[in-house]
Amino acid sequence: MEKRSRKNPRRQRRLEESLDQAEMAQPPVWPGVEGGHYKPLSIIEEERIHTAVLDLLERVGLSQAIPSMIELVSAKGGRLTEQGRLLFPRALVDDVIANTCKSFTLHGRAEGRDLQVSGDRVHVGTGGASPNMVDLETGLYRDALLQDLYDAARLVDSLDNIHFFNRSLVARDCPDAWSLDLNTAYVSTAGTSKHIGMSFFEAEHVEKINEYFDLLAGGAGEFRKKPFCTLLCCHVVPPMRFAEESCKVLEAGVRLGYPVQLISAGQAGATSPATLAGSVVQSVAESLAGMVFCYLIDPQVKAIFAPKALVSDLRTGSMSGGSGEQGVLMAATAQMGRYYGFVTSSMAGMTDAKTPDAQHGYEKCHGLTLAAHAGANIITQGCGLQASLLGASFESYVIDNDMIGSVLRGVRGIEVSEETLALDVIEDVVNGEGHYLGAPQTLQRMKSDYLYPQVANRQSPDDWKQAGSLDIYQRAKMTARDVLKAHYPELITPEQDRWIRDRYRILLDEKLMQPA
Amino acid sequence: MEKRSRKNPRRQRRLEESLDQAEMAQPPVWPGVEGGHYKPLSIIEEERIHTAVLDLLERVGLSQAIPSMIELVSAKGGRLTEQGRLLFPRALVDDVIANTCKSFTLHGRAEGRDLQVSGDRVHVGTGGASPNMVDLETGLYRDALLQDLYDAARLVDSLDNIHFFNRSLVARDCPDAWSLDLNTAYVSTAGTSKHIGMSFFEAEHVEKINEYFDLLAGGAGEFRKKPFCTLLCCHVVPPMRFAEESCKVLEAGVRLGYPVQLISAGQAGATSPATLAGSVVQSVAESLAGMVFCYLIDPQVKAIFAPKALVSDLRTGSMSGGSGEQGVLMAATAQMGRYYGFVTSSMAGMTDAKTPDAQHGYEKCHGLTLAAHAGANIITQGCGLQASLLGASFESYVIDNDMIGSVLRGVRGIEVSEETLALDVIEDVVNGEGHYLGAPQTLQRMKSDYLYPQVANRQSPDDWKQAGSLDIYQRAKMTARDVLKAHYPELITPEQDRWIRDRYRILLDEKLMQPA
Repeated sequence: MEKRSRKNPRRQRRLEESLDQAEMAQPPVWPGVEGGHYKPLSIIEEERIHTAVLDLLERVGLSQAIPSMIELVSAKGGRLTEQGRLLFPRALVDDVIANTCKSFTLHGRAEGRDLQVSGDRVHVGTGGASPNMVDLETGLYRDALLQDLYDAARLVDSLDNIHFFNRSLVARDCPDAWSLDLNTAYVSTAGTSKHIGMSFFEAEHVEKINEYFDLLAGGAGEFRKKPFCTLLCCHVVPPMRFAEESCKVLEAGVRLGYPVQLISAGQAGATSPATLAGSVVQSVAESLAGMVFCYLIDPQVKAIFAPKALVSDLRTGSMSGGSGEQGVLMAATAQMGRYYGFVTSSMAGMTDAKTPDAQHGYEKCHGLTLAAHAGANIITQGCGLQASLLGASFESYVIDNDMIGSVLRGVRGIEVSEETLALDVIEDVVNGEGHYLGAPQTLQRMKSDYLYPQVANRQSPDDWKQAGSLDIYQRAKMTARDVLKAHYPELITPEQDRWIRDRYRILLDEKLMQPA
Repeated sequence: MEKRSRKNPRRQRRLEESLDQAEMAQPPVWPGVEGGHYKPLSIIEEERIHTAVLDLLERVGLSQAIPSMIELVSAKGGRLTEQGRLLFPRALVDDVIANTCKSFTLHGRAEGRDLQVSGDRVHVGTGGASPNMVDLETGLYRDALLQDLYDAARLVDSLDNIHFFNRSLVARDCPDAWSLDLNTAYVSTAGTSKHIGMSFFEAEHVEKINEYFDLLAGGAGEFRKKPFCTLLCCHVVPPMRFAEESCKVLEAGVRLGYPVQLISAGQAGATSPATLAGSVVQSVAESLAGMVFCYLIDPQVKAIFAPKALVSDLRTGSMSGGSGEQGVLMAATAQMGRYYGFVTSSMAGMTDAKTPDAQHGYEKCHGLTLAAHAGANIITQGCGLQASLLGASFESYVIDNDMIGSVLRGVRGIEVSEETLALDVIEDVVNGEGHYLGAPQTLQRMKSDYLYPQVANRQSPDDWKQAGSLDIYQRAKMTARDVLKAHYPELITPEQDRWIRDRYRILLDEKLMQPA
């Protein structure tokens, strides 16, 4: 090498400059890479679905609306039928679509962790309510515990391609609803400075936990200035029925300035129509009804359109999050979000596999790829879960982090410019060395254009065998162990910790929140 | 159940009618499902790439053209430079783009196995030249053998979502080039009635093997009427250089009526530019140069545009077929094929994983999903391979068959019609039972809209555990063993077999071509 450089100092200098430039270049992927190049629905189909949605909201409406909602909607031309269904007039729905805030920030609690959600910008993170954990040591399904949630938060905190941490498992060692909400908020904020998301059982919990969030944010009223937690709300029980308690939670959250997700998660063939188009219509209508309510409470609301229609295996009626139908259904609902211009959340990256095998990989990737390219802004359930959301696994978080990276690299797409078309480079190489290996452009692009995975393996079969023939599950297990042993971010001061532990019953021992 | 039906005979009758209809319905996926809803490039970017391609062909051209090519291109305004580079004038290239046949049939040898390639119709099959086989019993990498190729053909013959069988491994027990070409043709046609594809080392081989294909087709000159084999031709050695021997093979194939793939497989950062846009430009230019040659030999040619640009891991220079960059690069080249209207082949469904783990699943699915949604007509290397094309595996064919099904279901998309929007059904359910489980539409759609996988698992964690906690690799192994034990399609008559065995040295023992 040295000999070569002495022969051609100019070439050597050019290479060094290229490497310097490469060091400073943008990374290959980032939160908010722009999607939207995949549109499963034609323009006419979008409009047809929208018309059906308006029709459904105006003619059929939703039952079980809470009094405040009936009052707000009625004041804007809506009406409660004798059968107790709240009908939404077209003009109102169209106004809400036109005027809802379409660009805002989901804040993190550390520099560089804010997410700008708008347009076709794509972010991927966790989510779900898995009752089980696949034990890192035994590999067996067991009850999910609060410690698992804390560990998941810490793990996600360390994984670059996972952009936010929505509560993805239900800590089953929490004895009641209040304990669960409180401890979920506590361990999520203790484990990661990324934006978090959670649901709340009661409106009162939102208010009480808001005090804790205010404390973390620096004082009373501070949380609402830069809210670092999204309130995830399943405000409906499909088909076309409001969930009363959740609507009260929603109202409390909106009043306190939380970003809120209006989640409709009907299951095609069970709680929503078996035809995918019908499922899109119903879930869009249900989610829109929630958007209307939020807007009427507060026109400045950070409302996230979240029609998360699911798919059943019609032979058994049970959910099939990993099916091909699920992928395209979610992409179509995401496209409707883009059609409205709403900040949109989709659920994608699910699998029916019980272990990180090839099914785990392809099912998750299929759904995630379609939702991301459709331009979903906030993809939840995008990592860490398996068994159709019934099991969380640390290895999955680690594997999926690499998968998400790949998908985001695809979403970033191909930049076309004078420089990237590279006609000069091609001509140089054709008339010169005959290959691009040492071309300055190749070195420059190494870090800006190409993503190198963390646990995915690129060795030759021989090298891989010599390294022990480990599959990605085994490699991810090692990574998860390493991270969980060492990564204890300090995100809560001792004073803050004392405040909450004095006041409320925190179920995770402090000793378990630091290196052994 | 009976009690219920007695109560409501009309409902029971409706259910029965629905099930009858369901029996007759279209299947959930089929060969030729229409893609094209994903466009990584904008219209302006397509045109900019096209302009760069024309510029490259006209100004830089390709070296090492064979005499017949120089003659044909020169007669149409082309020119050989003093440096020996053949330049292609814009007008000629544009004429070829305008006039090349854009719709034809890739024939199979049994009913229902013809593939109509045109427009955005997507087909997925095998391909590659893997030197290794992952042994079905030991799980270890070893030399690929002729028996493996025959077994792969039989296995693919049984898998519904794999639409054609391109030679995907190199039988290393064939002692020379002629033996390899001959035996590849023989075992491929013996193993499957699906359309096959293969490369040829010499023009003479094409002619000799054509006699065998004529025999199978029913007599001299019959093969060209319904050619059941595509000639796969890497007519270039990137960057911008023709492969002389391959060009002669190509010419022989075109004259004999073979559908031909014009494959350019430069590797970004090594034999094509590191910028993805530059790689698109070069591979499109190289593939187009081959299209021009074919068209000038025969304006009726069934030429398949096949810019199959690959990606390197720039740290090592070795190929990374499973990278995220690979997925979007291939989708962009496929989009250029759609831009020209050519029948287009892409290489997608690759992985760098050495075993069917989660990486295997997500990497394959990512590339395949993007290429399919971009509307690639003929996706090769779509199944059966791993280790960046260095290893074939029977389990992979079986797993990938399910994966392809899922991807095709996504490509099929969402049908929007009065019926599928399902407003009436929603209204009925909302005012009636409150769920869609027993709705006639749900039963009707069970088989037409929903795909049920063969080895992918949808059990609950408990049921899965009770069934032995098998991952998809283990289940696929059982399926592969079952098929290979039983499925010996009779596709060559004893007379045909005698003809070829008398005349040429077939290296696979007849006894190995029937049940033990």
